[in-house]
Amino acid sequence: MYRYKITIAYDGTNFAGFQKQPHQRTVEGVLERAVNKIAKEPAKLIKVYGSGRTDAGVHALGQVVHFDIPFNLANNAMLHALNSILPLDVEVLAVQQVSEAFHARYGTKGKRYCYRLALGEFVDPFKRHYTGHWKFPLDITAIQTALPDLLGKHDFTTFCASGGHTKTNIREIYEATATYNAQENEVVFEFYGSGFLYNMVRIMVAVLIEIGSGKRPVHDISRLIAAKDRNEARQTAPASGLYLKKVYYPAEFEK
Amino acid sequence: MYRYKITIAYDGTNFAGFQKQPHQRTVEGVLERAVNKIAKEPAKLIKVYGSGRTDAGVHALGQVVHFDIPFNLANNAMLHALNSILPLDVEVLAVQQVSEAFHARYGTKGKRYCYRLALGEFVDPFKRHYTGHWKFPLDITAIQTALPDLLGKHDFTTFCASGGHTKTNIREIYEATATYNAQENEVVFEFYGSGFLYNMVRIMVAVLIEIGSGKRPVHDISRLIAAKDRNEARQTAPASGLYLKKVYYPAEFEK
Repeated sequence: MYRYKITIAYDGTNFAGFQKQPHQRTVEGVLERAVNKIAKEPAKLIKVYGSGRTDAGVHALGQVVHFDIPFNLANNAMLHALNSILPLDVEVLAVQQVSEAFHARYGTKGKRYCYRLALGEFVDPFKRHYTGHWKFPLDITAIQTALPDLLGKHDFTTFCASGGHTKTNIREIYEATATYNAQENEVVFEFYGSGFLYNMVRIMVAVLIEIGSGKRPVHDISRLIAAKDRNEARQTAPASGLYLKKVYYPAEFEK
Repeated sequence: MYRYKITIAYDGTNFAGFQKQPHQRTVEGVLERAVNKIAKEPAKLIKVYGSGRTDAGVHALGQVVHFDIPFNLANNAMLHALNSILPLDVEVLAVQQVSEAFHARYGTKGKRYCYRLALGEFVDPFKRHYTGHWKFPLDITAIQTALPDLLGKHDFTTFCASGGHTKTNIREIYEATATYNAQENEVVFEFYGSGFLYNMVRIMVAVLIEIGSGKRPVHDISRLIAAKDRNEARQTAPASGLYLKKVYYPAEFEK
């Protein structure tokens, strides 16, 4: 078997999330169909393995997936074959043949997400599926002051929605930034960490919006982390603003 | 009656164009419903008048519409009322009460369109509804050399699809530009003129792509204009890249 690592982008708007589900259009489902069409192995379903799930409406700029096929196809041929089969809301950006030591899910070293939050009184029609929206005043300096409180290794139970299945809620955040883009009238959040719990980025963004609108003290995050209680952070920012930007692997698997 | 001039943006993806049609979702249809909901005049349907039609899938950044309602509502109250009723793919950007001398369609002085053409081998999932796509090499300098041939007053019959209803095919083009945006890997065309015939911008873009890919001589446009024959320019660039950017009126109606 030959193992392929592929990097994909998708517009999450018309998908019921990444993970395959019966009677639902999912990213995993359309990928699996494309890979099996190329592999032409009717006897056995070839499975695809993503670095992790994304929810319905969440986008990807650099999701990573692996699968095995029984013959050797050049990377560029695989890229063209997949893109010619896949629907237009999924694009394969890169293909790399890797050893069987590579696993898209269990081999990750870190992930980077961004969240686009559109400001302004009304929703821009061209952004309705591609940003969250906040129409009230937002103190971006307060948010930027709060962000370092997220950095480091913490138990993020407060920032974890039920429905995830993980052994531990300890994650490390390496970078957390918020940048105001004046031309777009958007705040772009970016988070780089060892991994993220279920809905963690969207809960962090919701807490940061509360801080930016004066509903929480600027340094409430340290208290929230210590509380280890989701009831302390009940809001979740909408899926439409969230992008899985990059998945990190050990150097030998990075092109 | 009180006449309102409104400026709107819309994502044309999920509309069967601007013009009202039975059993179809149209921009005119959703606007008319919103205006009549506000006017509360069950006895008489209030009509809305656009500056012109846009086809299915064509977007607007500054379409202009007028309508009359039987009572005086402040501009800002009208803005909020409309945006609270309209679906999220239409946004009212500005509202201005105007005299009855204003007519959105018959009073136009000019229009500005832009066309976004994405380059690159594959379609970016986030651009599939918002750009045209060209995957072959494109000589943008050749296009820029050709553009001045469009300027001035001409009979644009060659650039007019059947289905339009106009007294004359003479129009004047004041500006025609093409700019390469390296960050987006897109060519953005912009056309400002007295008015545009049915499909005229999309036919011009298709001809310019042919010039940029060496399928036509750089200065073929003068010959095409002289030919007055649509069969000389058979291609039409996809609707998804086209944006009605601005509609111009005499100074007294411009805020």
